[in-house]
Amino acid sequence: MDGALNDIKIVEVTTMAAAPMAARLLADWGADVVHIEHPQTGDPWRTWIKKPDGSLYPPEVSYHYWEHYNRNKRSMSLDISQEQGREIIYRLLKNADVFITNRRPAELRRFRLDYASIKKTNKRLVYASLTGFGKKGPDKDAPGHDTVGFWARSGFMYLLQQAGSAPPSPGYRTVAAGDTLTGVALALGITMALLARQKTGLGQEVDVSLLNMGIFANVPAVMSLGPVIQVLGGKKAYTDMLRRERHDVSPLFISYETKDKRWLQLSLAPPEPYWAEFCRAIGREEMAADSRFSSAEARTENKEALFRTLEDVFRTRTLAQWKAAFKKTSLIWSPIQRPDEAVRDPQARANGIFVPFQHPGLGRMRVVANPVRLSRTPASVRTPAPEFNQHTEEILLELGYDWESIARLKREKVIA
Amino acid sequence: MDGALNDIKIVEVTTMAAAPMAARLLADWGADVVHIEHPQTGDPWRTWIKKPDGSLYPPEVSYHYWEHYNRNKRSMSLDISQEQGREIIYRLLKNADVFITNRRPAELRRFRLDYASIKKTNKRLVYASLTGFGKKGPDKDAPGHDTVGFWARSGFMYLLQQAGSAPPSPGYRTVAAGDTLTGVALALGITMALLARQKTGLGQEVDVSLLNMGIFANVPAVMSLGPVIQVLGGKKAYTDMLRRERHDVSPLFISYETKDKRWLQLSLAPPEPYWAEFCRAIGREEMAADSRFSSAEARTENKEALFRTLEDVFRTRTLAQWKAAFKKTSLIWSPIQRPDEAVRDPQARANGIFVPFQHPGLGRMRVVANPVRLSRTPASVRTPAPEFNQHTEEILLELGYDWESIARLKREKVIA
Repeated sequence: MDGALNDIKIVEVTTMAAAPMAARLLADWGADVVHIEHPQTGDPWRTWIKKPDGSLYPPEVSYHYWEHYNRNKRSMSLDISQEQGREIIYRLLKNADVFITNRRPAELRRFRLDYASIKKTNKRLVYASLTGFGKKGPDKDAPGHDTVGFWARSGFMYLLQQAGSAPPSPGYRTVAAGDTLTGVALALGITMALLARQKTGLGQEVDVSLLNMGIFANVPAVMSLGPVIQVLGGKKAYTDMLRRERHDVSPLFISYETKDKRWLQLSLAPPEPYWAEFCRAIGREEMAADSRFSSAEARTENKEALFRTLEDVFRTRTLAQWKAAFKKTSLIWSPIQRPDEAVRDPQARANGIFVPFQHPGLGRMRVVANPVRLSRTPASVRTPAPEFNQHTEEILLELGYDWESIARLKREKVIA
Repeated sequence: MDGALNDIKIVEVTTMAAAPMAARLLADWGADVVHIEHPQTGDPWRTWIKKPDGSLYPPEVSYHYWEHYNRNKRSMSLDISQEQGREIIYRLLKNADVFITNRRPAELRRFRLDYASIKKTNKRLVYASLTGFGKKGPDKDAPGHDTVGFWARSGFMYLLQQAGSAPPSPGYRTVAAGDTLTGVALALGITMALLARQKTGLGQEVDVSLLNMGIFANVPAVMSLGPVIQVLGGKKAYTDMLRRERHDVSPLFISYETKDKRWLQLSLAPPEPYWAEFCRAIGREEMAADSRFSSAEARTENKEALFRTLEDVFRTRTLAQWKAAFKKTSLIWSPIQRPDEAVRDPQARANGIFVPFQHPGLGRMRVVANPVRLSRTPASVRTPAPEFNQHTEEILLELGYDWESIARLKREKVIA
């Protein structure tokens, strides 16, 4: 066997990023994934990234983007709002192992693609859904992107906002990072359900939301359950703690600007084992014995002085010089890299996060590997993300449709 | 059956956050997880959160924190640097299904806990490791926290930095969010390996790193593979694009400050279907027909004017008033909530992300549920995170040690 999922068939009625990423991860391990797209509009993710003036980037740019979420899949166009489209998807699901969707509950009921309807035809089916805000509650049918579901509503974005600045915007900066990470959780749920099916013979429903993931990831949310806010001294004390600025926390656990306007992040926590070595690394050996800083208590008492001193010290050398000075130490630190630097980082490259791929249209390229590495049944990149509608006929022929029926489905705009 | 993993035994030699979260997620589905801690120091995560002066918070605060990563587990003290400690862990692993560690490669070889050594005694064992920077490369043995591995080095933190402000610091703000999300990926890898083992009868190595996850999550990193930077017009154009400020992007995809100094996030992308409804929601119906704004092209041309107008409009009402105005619309938006607000959010509550739990010492409380919901084999909260060393004797008795040997192991400080 190659992948762990070579015998698994997945059908996805999804768009954009989060749910397609779950399916792509599973496709990397060999699952046959059919990505269903609307015959007229296709998946909007194909052209989501646009220039500030609204025009499209050249194909090389959007390709990497689309590819990341959809490689190793097949594309089928199908209008699920038509009765004939639903008949086809029911035929697909009769022999599928997994159905993945990011449609909202009301839509799914309208298209009879809710779990209650589908499980009657295939009780072994794992039914996985990814929503912005969950399948219950007042906003279950509200639309939710990465930015609002994972980041803004969960408390995540509040925590990243700094004094005197607007909140950072993962939406136009990190682009779908919350979606992507939530897709990993959905893939976990699907795999767990497949494992359970080995014992029970039965499928089940898997349910993940952007909002739940954002809350789950944040310890400050976890901490605010129960009486913690009162214990801390009330809401204001809690909020102040959450938004502590750089100079309010340990000067050994923050970032500093360098001579060339770059930033270096320290993470010397707990600091005790590192203090003397740190002083040597910054060329200030005398500070190791300086009684203002030489114990945890003293550093807390003289936090402001230490902060100012380190701000000045780090401005005396460039990031490259600091990297050289820190390289041979056991300190916990990192340059704050740009994404293009991360991509050239020898450490990242050594661990196989980028893999070469020969794309039929764009030639030799590298793509980001599956971040979960398995030694015996490794993930692989086999085929590029599909062209829109590339496999519709192939899949209909597999289902037993003949060319005459396929021509009719095209005429009636059930497929493209 | 209750959980999907009721028959799975996991041994973890881990500390802190990321690797323990992988084990905790699996414990939620019924796996028996033995969390091994050093007999003298224990897992430093038990008391990681400290006040700015370095002193400990009351138990209610650190409890929620420690609990989140370690519920449903058993705690065993064991000094794996001693030969007798290694003998015990080898006996545990002989009948285990999964080994999880976040120790670095050099340490694992020293303790003969590397995969090559362990798999000789149990070829069905799934061997899972979580590192800061991966198991190969120049920095494979460098220490890596959440802040440096997931956020700083990967490009993530760079993307969240805004003009005129230091980089945000997930380290002291979101606390281990990158660890937590990477733990989900390790849990996925372990589950996939267990599924593969059903067919092959063999275990394998699973390998996840904070750095790889940070890169994987970020489309701007993905995009900078291949010729994209050149296509965009060179490195400066690329960097400028990554750090676009609020006023440089679509005014319908950013956050605005309200009258009461709170923030509201819009995510009207693509904006076309929402424009008229949005104008009504903000009480500026006349803007829908205003030729400066009524098409995508016009809004791009008059971006600055639209931005300033919306900044002024949103400052005229409080967040609560805006929530009321947006509630009945189909717009994609969210208040930027504090974590304590997220915890009280009726939508979050309706979807079961918080579950009640009766803690033996602290009484009735709520904890954050497993974010992956399975209908037939649901995750559950059965036992609180263990006290340090709580199950050492119980586990040694299960392995066949008698009370005399246990007393000797205590005397020789192999266990606590």
